[in-house]
Amino acid sequence: MSHPPAGQPGVAPAAGARPTPYLHVDAHLLAGNVAAMAALAREHGVALRPHAKTHKCLEVARLQVDAGAVGLTVATVAEAEVFAEGGFGDLFVAYPLWVDAARGARLRALREHASVAMGVDSVAGARALAAQLPGAAVLVEVDTGHHRTGVPPEEAGGLAEAAARSGLDVRGVFTFPGHSYSPGVRERVAHEEEDGLRRAAASLGRHGLAPRVVSGGSTPTAASGLGGGVLTELRPGVYAFGDAQQWELGTTTPDRLALCCVATVVSARPGRVVLDCGSKTLGADRPAWSSGYGRLLDHPDARVTSLSEHHAVVEWDRSPVPEPGSRLRVVPNHVCSAVNLADELVVDEATVWAVAARGANT
Amino acid sequence: MSHPPAGQPGVAPAAGARPTPYLHVDAHLLAGNVAAMAALAREHGVALRPHAKTHKCLEVARLQVDAGAVGLTVATVAEAEVFAEGGFGDLFVAYPLWVDAARGARLRALREHASVAMGVDSVAGARALAAQLPGAAVLVEVDTGHHRTGVPPEEAGGLAEAAARSGLDVRGVFTFPGHSYSPGVRERVAHEEEDGLRRAAASLGRHGLAPRVVSGGSTPTAASGLGGGVLTELRPGVYAFGDAQQWELGTTTPDRLALCCVATVVSARPGRVVLDCGSKTLGADRPAWSSGYGRLLDHPDARVTSLSEHHAVVEWDRSPVPEPGSRLRVVPNHVCSAVNLADELVVDEATVWAVAARGANT
Repeated sequence: MSHPPAGQPGVAPAAGARPTPYLHVDAHLLAGNVAAMAALAREHGVALRPHAKTHKCLEVARLQVDAGAVGLTVATVAEAEVFAEGGFGDLFVAYPLWVDAARGARLRALREHASVAMGVDSVAGARALAAQLPGAAVLVEVDTGHHRTGVPPEEAGGLAEAAARSGLDVRGVFTFPGHSYSPGVRERVAHEEEDGLRRAAASLGRHGLAPRVVSGGSTPTAASGLGGGVLTELRPGVYAFGDAQQWELGTTTPDRLALCCVATVVSARPGRVVLDCGSKTLGADRPAWSSGYGRLLDHPDARVTSLSEHHAVVEWDRSPVPEPGSRLRVVPNHVCSAVNLADELVVDEATVWAVAARGANT
Repeated sequence: MSHPPAGQPGVAPAAGARPTPYLHVDAHLLAGNVAAMAALAREHGVALRPHAKTHKCLEVARLQVDAGAVGLTVATVAEAEVFAEGGFGDLFVAYPLWVDAARGARLRALREHASVAMGVDSVAGARALAAQLPGAAVLVEVDTGHHRTGVPPEEAGGLAEAAARSGLDVRGVFTFPGHSYSPGVRERVAHEEEDGLRRAAASLGRHGLAPRVVSGGSTPTAASGLGGGVLTELRPGVYAFGDAQQWELGTTTPDRLALCCVATVVSARPGRVVLDCGSKTLGADRPAWSSGYGRLLDHPDARVTSLSEHHAVVEWDRSPVPEPGSRLRVVPNHVCSAVNLADELVVDEATVWAVAARGANT
């Protein structure tokens, strides 16, 4: 095999001495994605509270807030601690936390530095929280079809009333329409999301509570247009970077993908190359509808057909296959998982952002 | 719902103030697993070189070496650096490294502290390595059916000869029979592994090279008995802890599982509970043949039917379902992935082991 011509088929955005695999962020594309979602929220008159679990990175959160986000969404108290420490003062933990004494102590310390609201989806959870943090701000989690956490919309008012009686400050309702991560469903799911939130808000009304916050919005359902006028707040996460799932779902395009993994070809045979990025770099996420375990940004026809911890096996039908030592750009299936496996995001040779909340699971 | 009686259905091995989710190691069961594999290797007269990617932990490696392991296997130069720094002097990087100038410099520094052998599976890779580390010790990687990296057995001799001509010290051959991670195949795969290694060794012989090392052995094929007498060295990894995959493959039993994730029930409805351990704690590994995304150690009938980043949804057919706040022990599907997501392994309230090589992907 002869060495491929410059740029083909092996290419890398920062092919220097930096050892592979590493995650590369295109700051220009990131800024564009952040601005576009901010514009969408403004256009519809809804607050934008991006989910920081996607990037876990203070620099990206700063971009989002500078573009108009009202605050951040996080998934855990540990993430909230990192972002509060980083100077972000308005946080929502979109999760039905179980608040025992230890977590209660952490939340009380956290409230010294930031305004923190939390999710509740059970009377037991609300009472446990109220025992630790009287007066804490909460949103009732509503199941609008994803069937994970959350109560059915009609039960939201009863739970909200019980939470209020426990002494919590019930601000409204939220949902995560995770069933939107599937092909051809996002219009329908966006409708279910809005309909469920509308019914949940009405349920609160029947219990004498007026929801100030009606929060929803995944990256796919945000892309469907926000036509219903129910939401007051949007919490997308993945949109900042995009990933192979969103590429294949059609909610983004390859030219807007702001994060990739730079990997090296370590083995090549006719029809197959193996890269040094495996599940410990990309994450093992693989929805049944996806075409593989990730995509090659510069080779949309190639498919990552299997993933080991340190190997991505790529079917490569065309000739010539890249030679060992070539660097390629791989788009992870699920960017949130890939970021959580990395200690840093490489912007350019002089700029590296820490994944400050990596592993912040508690 | 009434609170369940002590120990049922929510139970935890160390239900104290430690925030969930966390990984718990049963040191007694770990010691038993380490001793059993050491005994198997001794019985068959083969060297044991456990794969440290499973635990990434100096304390576990020390147990393995104290039980008779000749050294450690690692997957990356970064892992080798951690274990060399930790005092382990005999390392094999079971990977066809692409050794550029930067990686060459790291390997030269590493060789000051440890004996390091590496894998090769291409002439290009061998030449790149030889240019950086003349005389480096290598094993030729052989594909015995997993179809990932490695050359076909009959090509091993040609590659070995080319590597030797490049100035490398060719010590022998190795394979990883990863296709053994599937139900009902391990006897057949163990045969393919031994047959492929035998043919590869013969191929080296035809090129005038005598393999001193013939290295193989996954946890499943090691469990099949090492009957062929071909291997001189065994490199299993998962056996130290075990995981839900090995439980379901029948290579271990629940009473020998030495690692679990302690998680809290955050949401409960009839037929379903949700735990606070998701794919960012357990890993998203989910082979098609497995029954779910992990198992509950104390509830073998329950199934983790879906996994989000911070949610494990468990189908719970029996009554009563555990109440919010209960702690449960979850067995990850693939322990290597779970460990790589954690900063530490909790042994008891006074003993925590660092996952020293977490994220060491380069």
